[in-house]
Amino acid sequence: MSAVTKRSLAPSAEEQLQKRADAIRLQVTQGISKPFKKVIDVSSGDIHSTGMKPITFVRQVLAGCLCPDLLDSDTLPHDSQLRARKLLEHCDGGSVGAYAESSGMAYVKSTVAKFISARDGGLSSNPAHIFIASGSLRAITVVLKLLDQGEGAHRTGVMIPLPFPYTLPRVLERVGSVPLPYSLTEEAGWRIEKKELHRAIQASKGHCWPRAIYISNPGNPTGHVQSRESIQEVIEFAAQNNLFLLVDEVNQDTVFGMGSEFVSYKKVLAEMGPPYSHTVQLASVHSLSNGILGECGLRAGYIELVNVDEHVMLFAETLLCGDISTPITGQIALDVMADPPRPGDPSYCLYRQEVESRRNTLRRNMHRSAEFFNSLPGFHCPPVQSGVFIYPHLTLLPTALTHAQGLGVEAGLWYCERLLEEEGVCVGVNECMGKAVTQSCPPGSNWHLRMCVLMPPDALKEVLCRLQAFHCRFLKGF
Amino acid sequence: MSAVTKRSLAPSAEEQLQKRADAIRLQVTQGISKPFKKVIDVSSGDIHSTGMKPITFVRQVLAGCLCPDLLDSDTLPHDSQLRARKLLEHCDGGSVGAYAESSGMAYVKSTVAKFISARDGGLSSNPAHIFIASGSLRAITVVLKLLDQGEGAHRTGVMIPLPFPYTLPRVLERVGSVPLPYSLTEEAGWRIEKKELHRAIQASKGHCWPRAIYISNPGNPTGHVQSRESIQEVIEFAAQNNLFLLVDEVNQDTVFGMGSEFVSYKKVLAEMGPPYSHTVQLASVHSLSNGILGECGLRAGYIELVNVDEHVMLFAETLLCGDISTPITGQIALDVMADPPRPGDPSYCLYRQEVESRRNTLRRNMHRSAEFFNSLPGFHCPPVQSGVFIYPHLTLLPTALTHAQGLGVEAGLWYCERLLEEEGVCVGVNECMGKAVTQSCPPGSNWHLRMCVLMPPDALKEVLCRLQAFHCRFLKGF
Repeated sequence: MSAVTKRSLAPSAEEQLQKRADAIRLQVTQGISKPFKKVIDVSSGDIHSTGMKPITFVRQVLAGCLCPDLLDSDTLPHDSQLRARKLLEHCDGGSVGAYAESSGMAYVKSTVAKFISARDGGLSSNPAHIFIASGSLRAITVVLKLLDQGEGAHRTGVMIPLPFPYTLPRVLERVGSVPLPYSLTEEAGWRIEKKELHRAIQASKGHCWPRAIYISNPGNPTGHVQSRESIQEVIEFAAQNNLFLLVDEVNQDTVFGMGSEFVSYKKVLAEMGPPYSHTVQLASVHSLSNGILGECGLRAGYIELVNVDEHVMLFAETLLCGDISTPITGQIALDVMADPPRPGDPSYCLYRQEVESRRNTLRRNMHRSAEFFNSLPGFHCPPVQSGVFIYPHLTLLPTALTHAQGLGVEAGLWYCERLLEEEGVCVGVNECMGKAVTQSCPPGSNWHLRMCVLMPPDALKEVLCRLQAFHCRFLKGF
Repeated sequence: MSAVTKRSLAPSAEEQLQKRADAIRLQVTQGISKPFKKVIDVSSGDIHSTGMKPITFVRQVLAGCLCPDLLDSDTLPHDSQLRARKLLEHCDGGSVGAYAESSGMAYVKSTVAKFISARDGGLSSNPAHIFIASGSLRAITVVLKLLDQGEGAHRTGVMIPLPFPYTLPRVLERVGSVPLPYSLTEEAGWRIEKKELHRAIQASKGHCWPRAIYISNPGNPTGHVQSRESIQEVIEFAAQNNLFLLVDEVNQDTVFGMGSEFVSYKKVLAEMGPPYSHTVQLASVHSLSNGILGECGLRAGYIELVNVDEHVMLFAETLLCGDISTPITGQIALDVMADPPRPGDPSYCLYRQEVESRRNTLRRNMHRSAEFFNSLPGFHCPPVQSGVFIYPHLTLLPTALTHAQGLGVEAGLWYCERLLEEEGVCVGVNECMGKAVTQSCPPGSNWHLRMCVLMPPDALKEVLCRLQAFHCRFLKGF
């Protein structure tokens, strides 16, 4: 086992739940009797797995690229054929079977640059500063690898929010960075507080070298959206402390909260003017999985680097060589995400209708789920502004706590394990770390569940129904 | 920059050539005048990039999976529709947009296991011991990471052949393994000699801990095919020295030499019986890129682990989590590679015809290229048994050597750079290291070019024509 592997030996609570879900799923296919027909996994943001249908246009373009014969018939709409032809022109040998440049197809990078520029009100975006990777995690890994990883007190510290996206710790672990947690203030809508940032960086002194701050905005799993002012504060903090800003903006497409608006860190940085705009190093990450297409299985995402030395960018290219290239199919989908059908195009109406319907489903499901959780004793769920996760707060009673302690399990994990075993619903779980929480209740009694709500309404009904049945039984027992 | 990055700073000769080819390609698209219309890159095994057409069936299945509407019309043949439906049944939510298990879709793993078992004359293959990764390099990386990577004299040594597949050193560098080269004997058809293996492992004493031997069979870039006896010798050597056998068998589909036959290491190991068959740890790698489909852009490959502890296998799963999952499109293509249309299926005739035509093109092109190189002064090219590369030996004259020394470049690299600049042909290049070679000529005068020959005959004609024009000019000059 390598050092890396050794550190990875102990699966996290999340990973234990996931493994158990996989095992139960296998048992179900083997015909072993369970109190439910199938496992529903709502712990990740994988919306296709819970029944969301793909957006037609992206699939048509992909089918055309894969089977060029389809481009000579009238099976596919004209604009998807045109797009497929255009993309194939930019594949070596006119085939998606050829390798692309390590950092992504030049054509797709230029589409992405135009998308970013339009999003940021015309701010320029250079395709040479964009790197395509097979998903946002790979993109984040590449950025972290660009930072010097020293030894001992020189190890690279990366500030990360509490709560964090559940896949983040493994990424840090893999590259050998030290996580430096800063707590988001739940009672203030998961605000990032300057004081807390200062506390966190002070606490790192002597045991690592803080070099980057990771931000998730719009927030995963918290669903908050930072204001322009809050972003400015973080940029100032990064500048003062010479930190690289690693901004995960994969939820930029899914802001629905009244009065909330996504503004990119890059835009705010540019608007702040010198010295910030020319010095603060920034990487912004976006992905196919979390964008409105929700195409997790196709594996593609991108990073844009701002104010990063040209020489360092060359290394990003070298690091990406390890992947040889992001799957071309993913890159094609990225092109469609960044440049969807426009008014007047044959596919525009259907595209718009599908996207609008998806957004409406998300809004309605979020509302319905919040109402649901707020109606359950022990749960509390403030409004969510963005993303596909609802993140309700669960307070467990002392009886439940004592019982879990007797079993040697953490109470929140135990709740979720039982939910999985009894009702086949797999949710994510985190212990609450906020000060307000731990002051009022004994440790171990406050938890958050993480649940993706973007799914067909019937599927959501089924999930909530199972959750309710379980929770009532649980309350009765403990 | 991280330690890993620092080691990667210096691009290899290959990488320099590749970068220059990319730069020239860009210049051509920008309208900058060159003595050729386009760069032809024959340095990698990317057959689609040089114009080989995809195999229809795999693309039809993919199109059907991506656009399920196509499954309700008669646009696609019945068997490709059936296959697409079957694969979609095994995707979460019936969509290729959902994540799959980290180690690959269970259904595809079982198809691969059946393929391996049929290939090895009925020897059992367990799907739980198969791991799907996004390409053979990722698969090899995962295996290397399973080996303990110590420090100093405990660093993991991996025996690698000379010559090696050109992408291999970067993989070792990335995981921090020490390469321990063993030379293949060119004058004996690139045979692996027991004596040389012993020499190489002795030479490692004191500066690292040899833990694995990497074998490329059928050989890349050498095109040799190991006999059963040679494989047995390597297995015995691995057993004696407690080495993990990491066998790159990605060229198993492309053996065409008279009297040559691919036999898997796994099969030979099983036939050797105890103690070998139950103790020698083996990983065999195969890939979509090098298989008969040649689908590099779709990114998928697999490893099968043999005699590897169940606990260690769990870590392979954890390591693969970093990828989240191999692109589903690649996994679908892998399913087709492992289970192509059968006699009687509607797509069988076309599939067989396409594959046969591809094999015939490969055989004919290899023959034609060998004749071509053997007719050029300074080149020598023994028969090739397998793979898509021809690997001719080039001896440069002292005048050329002196000239290159004056420019401060290695002579072989200089030859290839000029070929690229003057004729737009990018080939791979290695200095010859064999004893027979260096005894008879001054160092730096013996080289191998690596050139993929699987391309449409007209494209090959163009490449050979450019090569001939360049070589004649070069000979006249030096």
